[in-house]
Amino acid sequence: MGTHLLVELHGCDPDRLKRVDVIRDIMVSAAEACKATVVDVAFHEFNPFGVSGIVVIAESHLSVHTWPEYRYAALDIFTCGTVIKPQEAVEYVALRFGCASPSIVEVKRGVIPGASRKLPHKISADRSAKTARRPLAAVPS
Amino acid sequence: MGTHLLVELHGCDPDRLKRVDVIRDIMVSAAEACKATVVDVAFHEFNPFGVSGIVVIAESHLSVHTWPEYRYAALDIFTCGTVIKPQEAVEYVALRFGCASPSIVEVKRGVIPGASRKLPHKISADRSAKTARRPLAAVPS
Repeated sequence: MGTHLLVELHGCDPDRLKRVDVIRDIMVSAAEACKATVVDVAFHEFNPFGVSGIVVIAESHLSVHTWPEYRYAALDIFTCGTVIKPQEAVEYVALRFGCASPSIVEVKRGVIPGASRKLPHKISADRSAKTARRPLAAVPS
Repeated sequence: MGTHLLVELHGCDPDRLKRVDVIRDIMVSAAEACKATVVDVAFHEFNPFGVSGIVVIAESHLSVHTWPEYRYAALDIFTCGTVIKPQEAVEYVALRFGCASPSIVEVKRGVIPGASRKLPHKISADRSAKTARRPLAAVPS
């Protein structure tokens, strides 16, 4: 199964929710903080303000959408496998956004009837990808 | 507020969960089917099989992760504003993946205490973006 954390970040510092370069850095650092393998990123800034961004990781994804006018950000961390500690990414983002009280809902995804094993995370099929950093032997099956 | 659909797609046709080009087309078409404005996409194929992909839309995002070996895909559709009908995207993806019985959990995101209005969706700040297709005057505030 996968672990999906739906995180409500109210009461953030609005100045930290506006700049796409800052938020991209925060989200990539959050992925690295929980030992995820970053595969790709896509971030966009909107008018009049607000940022949407995704970090695709070998273990699934992190996403964020910010509404600085409401001091609010919606954070999702969807991870598979046994290595990642998604709570560490939540704590990192909340700290950087100035959110004192993140609200977290955890949802189990991909519960296969009759199967006890966790869904494995994946290895990039693109051999040239800069992100294929984890040797195959180290991947949990 | 935003509407976040967490969709469990069990019993899919595994052959439809393997090819990144096919899944990218399905997800972009799903976004268009529910009248979302596509801003960016990021899709990756993994070894031995499986695809992860994100469609960033002006109204938030669609994401998918597939495990063809389990005939399973995890689909998320996170939308804001009043225009988008995310259920239509779910129906489209389920049909294309050959899933007869999608399981949907709806979560309200960004509920602002004391506020009754919905969080607005956003307009790309990148004027050159191919995806800034919706004129400003047509955007719900």
